[in-house]
Formats: sequence, structure tokens, C-alpha cells
Amino acid sequence: MNKFKALEWKDKKLILLDQRGLPHKSEYIPHSTASEVANSITNMTVRGAPAIGLAAAYGVCLASLESAHQTFANRIESIKSAIQILRSSRPTAVNLFWALNRMEKVLLDSKESDASQLSELLLNEANQLFKEDRETNIAIGKLGSSLLPSNCNVIHHCNTGSLATSEYGTALGIIRIAHEEGKNIHVFVDETRPRLQGGSLTTYELSSLKIPHTLIIDSAAAFVMKKYKIDACFVGCDRVAANGDVANKIGTYSLAIAAKAHGVPFYVACPTSTIDFNTKSGDEIEIEERSVSEITEIQGVKVSPEGTKAFNPAFDITPANLITAIITENGIFKPGEILA
Amino acid sequence: MNKFKALEWKDKKLILLDQRGLPHKSEYIPHSTASEVANSITNMTVRGAPAIGLAAAYGVCLASLESAHQTFANRIESIKSAIQILRSSRPTAVNLFWALNRMEKVLLDSKESDASQLSELLLNEANQLFKEDRETNIAIGKLGSSLLPSNCNVIHHCNTGSLATSEYGTALGIIRIAHEEGKNIHVFVDETRPRLQGGSLTTYELSSLKIPHTLIIDSAAAFVMKKYKIDACFVGCDRVAANGDVANKIGTYSLAIAAKAHGVPFYVACPTSTIDFNTKSGDEIEIEERSVSEITEIQGVKVSPEGTKAFNPAFDITPANLITAIITENGIFKPGEILA
Repeated sequence: MNKFKALEWKDKKLILLDQRGLPHKSEYIPHSTASEVANSITNMTVRGAPAIGLAAAYGVCLASLESAHQTFANRIESIKSAIQILRSSRPTAVNLFWALNRMEKVLLDSKESDASQLSELLLNEANQLFKEDRETNIAIGKLGSSLLPSNCNVIHHCNTGSLATSEYGTALGIIRIAHEEGKNIHVFVDETRPRLQGGSLTTYELSSLKIPHTLIIDSAAAFVMKKYKIDACFVGCDRVAANGDVANKIGTYSLAIAAKAHGVPFYVACPTSTIDFNTKSGDEIEIEERSVSEITEIQGVKVSPEGTKAFNPAFDITPANLITAIITENGIFKPGEILA
Repeated sequence: MNKFKALEWKDKKLILLDQRGLPHKSEYIPHSTASEVANSITNMTVRGAPAIGLAAAYGVCLASLESAHQTFANRIESIKSAIQILRSSRPTAVNLFWALNRMEKVLLDSKESDASQLSELLLNEANQLFKEDRETNIAIGKLGSSLLPSNCNVIHHCNTGSLATSEYGTALGIIRIAHEEGKNIHVFVDETRPRLQGGSLTTYELSSLKIPHTLIIDSAAAFVMKKYKIDACFVGCDRVAANGDVANKIGTYSLAIAAKAHGVPFYVACPTSTIDFNTKSGDEIEIEERSVSEITEIQGVKVSPEGTKAFNPAFDITPANLITAIITENGIFKPGEILA
């Protein structure tokens, strides 16, 4: 596997790169069961909205292999249970549910006569999802890059690169393609507390790709916008509501407010599968809250007094009116145009 | 010493609480020379604008004791050199220069006939600065508390408490006095990357004082303002320019922008000695940049790839138009009223 590859299907196993050890330790963990995959989504061995959708899809393939000895009817139920377990691994990113729905459709469309090929049918669908994500990333990257001048400074939040997707990335895919197209792009990288996806993952991808970048703490982004000419902010996305509100990594909202205050365009990059027409507005999106220890402990060392209470939402909601445009594989939209 | 006391003069030594070990390790370090004190200001053994001013003042007292064997003329020069060393220990907080100017005035006003009492004269002035800071804190606290309803939620950035001053604190002094006055105050504590003064120091003071609080990452403050009813943001200050622009801990500007966007009052608390009439606007304030390792390493563990470039300004500038009022011991002012 190349060093940025978040996931790969190999020898009837799902191999996940354990991103919690990056950039210093690259451990590849083979997964043989759907519940192992669900657990690795929950504990963030694999993370990033598109990547967890793909991991879950392969988790369904594992459930099919696990249940191969069962009667067809029992097997359908077993795989449906596995889908439920995978569905509850994380609540906010819609890509997870979208990918599982695609897998479930193949499952429910299958007939008893397909029994011997069920695993193959499901694997074909998972591979198709992977292929679509890769093509989508490249389309997003090209469209997004077209928005940038040949010399540019951008701010990026969290990690949205190869590690978060099939290969190129969404927001970081745009940056990568702009660089490949010969643009002189420099990236200010939000470190993205509490889990430091920017400081540990995005810097890792950018340095390997030799794309110039400067790491900053999240709360310095506004000051950077004042001090330097910033051409755009780029973020990925976990869910777009029908009204154009966006759920993304905590800190996105703060960055969008600062961008608005400085007249800096604020772009959200995501596949159209991230748009959830069933969610009317951001208010309806469930925001995952994670362990307070992500804030009160760093690298296993307690930094706050014993018993400190913390509020640790993993995501926030950025309202449509702060978003300049949403960049998808099908075009660049204003958030208000989604329903149109 | 009580557990929050940042500094104390005792037995001809300046005792500094090493704040870098808090909340888990309370080490008191005796300082015998001015250059030791300058070093402890630079390396943030002691921090907080008022506290470093006081530490520097006692550093001048140490310089006087160090040079007691010299001729009067040589001694004046030695102490002036020590003042220069202390002056260059950190660049942004004006309290440091203000306190040193007060000490230097005593030095320059002294006559050869004062030689035997020079150390005493200087110590009296340092003690006077300490006493004034304590009284100032209480006055700020009472005025600031008057702005708060009896049930309130506030956001606080960095540490501005006893650990940053003589005893009560500035912004945190307001919170402490509001609590002492029986107000039902709850504090959202910005952790304040990169050095986590909020997560390690402010939580420590608040938990010891039994003031209800919740720790958050800095980039979650905007989301907290959207989700909860926030009555005010409180920050301290390292320098107020004549036009009302404020230099304070990095992240203050970002917080002020978010407060403005949510209609949350944004208060800066500081002694009038923090107002620098010689600095016309925030653009003229030198912003200290600290080691990139404050971002790329956490608890001594590298979290970013080897060689990662980072931008690490210790402060930022919040323009006057984002500040609701500046709370001083002499009254509550709108930033634009400073020169009036």
C-alpha cells in the first residue's frame, strides 16, 4: 500500500492504516469481521467521511464472508445486523449511511439463486464505491483548482486528503491538483484540535507531496487572514443539509465566521453523496460528542486537573450564509442552489 | 505560599511558582539574580502580563543586592544593565516596561547619600507595585461583576487569574468576584493552544475556587455561542494601544470576531498601566513569535512530521471595533474613549 492509502481490500480482508499513530508510525491492521471494522470507525483508526463510508462498505463484504455457511435467509439477516452495527459506529457523516444504503440495496435485491455469488456481488459494489470516490475526488479537485489564481495562499482545516478518502481527497484533493497543475500554492494548515488531524495527517500528506505549507493553531487562522493575503479557505464536509448548512469538523464554523469577516471565500468540497436531502437544515444533524479525555489528556498525559468537565463536540454546523460555494464532482454550487 | 501565588519576595529572594508544571506539579523556584528572573520570564516559568511586570520589578531588587559591593556610580550602571536585560525578556506586554520604568525612576532619583538604602528603596517600590496590582484587581473585579446578571454563562480565554497577577486576576478576577458576590456564574474555558493556559491553569484556579466551568477547545467557542446563551466573553490584555486596539493571547481576535457575529459582549479587563499611549494602534505592537515546537510537539512528543514549518505568534491584535468595553480599576471605557 502507498503511504497515504487509508484502506485496501486484500485477500478477503480489509486492511486499514491506523491513522492514530501517524505521522511517526504506519501500522496496517487487517480486519476480518464487520464488528472489527465498526470498532475501528468508532475509535478513529480510520476517519474522514468518505473513507469511513468505504470502510463500512467493505465491512459489509466481511459480514457476507462471515455468514457464508448460513442458510440464505439467515445470512441476509446476519448481514443486515452487521449493517446496523456499522451504521451506529459514528452518527454525523452521512457518507457512512449512504454507502451502507448502497450495499443494503444490493443485499435486498439479491435472490436465493445469487447465494453463491452474494459475497462477490457485495464486493463488486464496494469496489464500485471506491472507484466512484476516486473519480469524484479528481473531478472535485479540478473544479476547485479552477477557482484559484496561479499564486495563492489558502487555509485548510482538518484532514481531507488521501487518508480521508479513496485516494486524492476532497478539499486537500483540490490543493493537490492545483499543485500538480503547476500552481504556486501555499497552505496554512489548521492543526485541528483536539485530535490534531491537521498537525499530524495533513502536514504528513503535504510534506510527502512537497506542497509548501505552514502549520498554525486553529485560533490563529483569523490573525493569519489579517496578516497575509489569503485567497480561500477549503474544508471537507460530513453532511450537507438540504438548505446548504454544513456539518464538518469542530472549528469549521469559527473559521467560516473569520473568513466572512475578512472577505475570504469559504469553500466546502465534497462528493454529492454528502448532500442529505432528508435533512432540512443543520439543526437536524446529530453532532457526535466524544470523550473529554481528547481535550484533558494529550499524548496520554493529563493536562487538566483530575475531574475537569469538558464539552467535546466532534463537529459543528456552518450555516449556508457563510459558505461561498460547495464544490462537488457535478459542479460548483451556491449552498442555496442545492434544492433548485 | 498559597497554591495560586505566582510570585513572592522572601528572604532576599524572588520565589516563582513554576507554572509549566501545573496543575500536577507545584514547584517553587527561588531566584537570586536579575538574569535568572529574565530567563524565567522568557521561558514562561512566570507568565501573565501583570505578573511578569511584578517579577521584573523584583528582578531589579535582586540586581541591587547583587551589586551592593560596588561603588554607587557603578552600581547604578549595573542595575540599569539588569533593567535592560529584564526589558528584553519578552516584547509584547507593556506591563513589563511600565513596571521597569517605575523601578528605574526610583533608581535614577536616588542620590549617593541613599546608597545604603538603595535596595530598600527599590524593594519598597516593587512592594508598592504588588500592592497596587492587588487593589487594582479587586476594583476591576467589582466593576466587571456589575456587568453580569445573577445567572450567567461566560467564555474566558487564556489565564488571567491569580497566577497571572498579584492575587485576584483581571478577567478571571471578575469571574471570581462575581462568584464571591453570590452570582451563579458558569465559565466556558478556552483551552488556549498552544501552551494550554486555559486547560491547565484556569481550570486549576476555577476548580480550586469551586466555580463551575467547562473546558472547550478554542475553535469550539463559536459553536458554544450558537448552542448556549452566552452573556459575555472576558479576556485579559498585554497592551492597549491609544486607539483602543488590544494585544492579547493568540486566539483573542478569533474569539472577538465570533462574539461580534453572535451579539455577545466582548470585554477586556486590565489595569490602566496596560494602556500604552505611546502606541498609536495595534499595528505598532511587536508580536512575539515563539518556538514552533510549541505546536509541533506536545508534552515532549512530536506530533508533526520532522521539519514541519509552523507560524507561532504568541499574541494577536483585536481591533477596537470588536471590543464592547475595557474594564479598568478607574472605570469601564469604550475603546474609543481612551484618548478622550
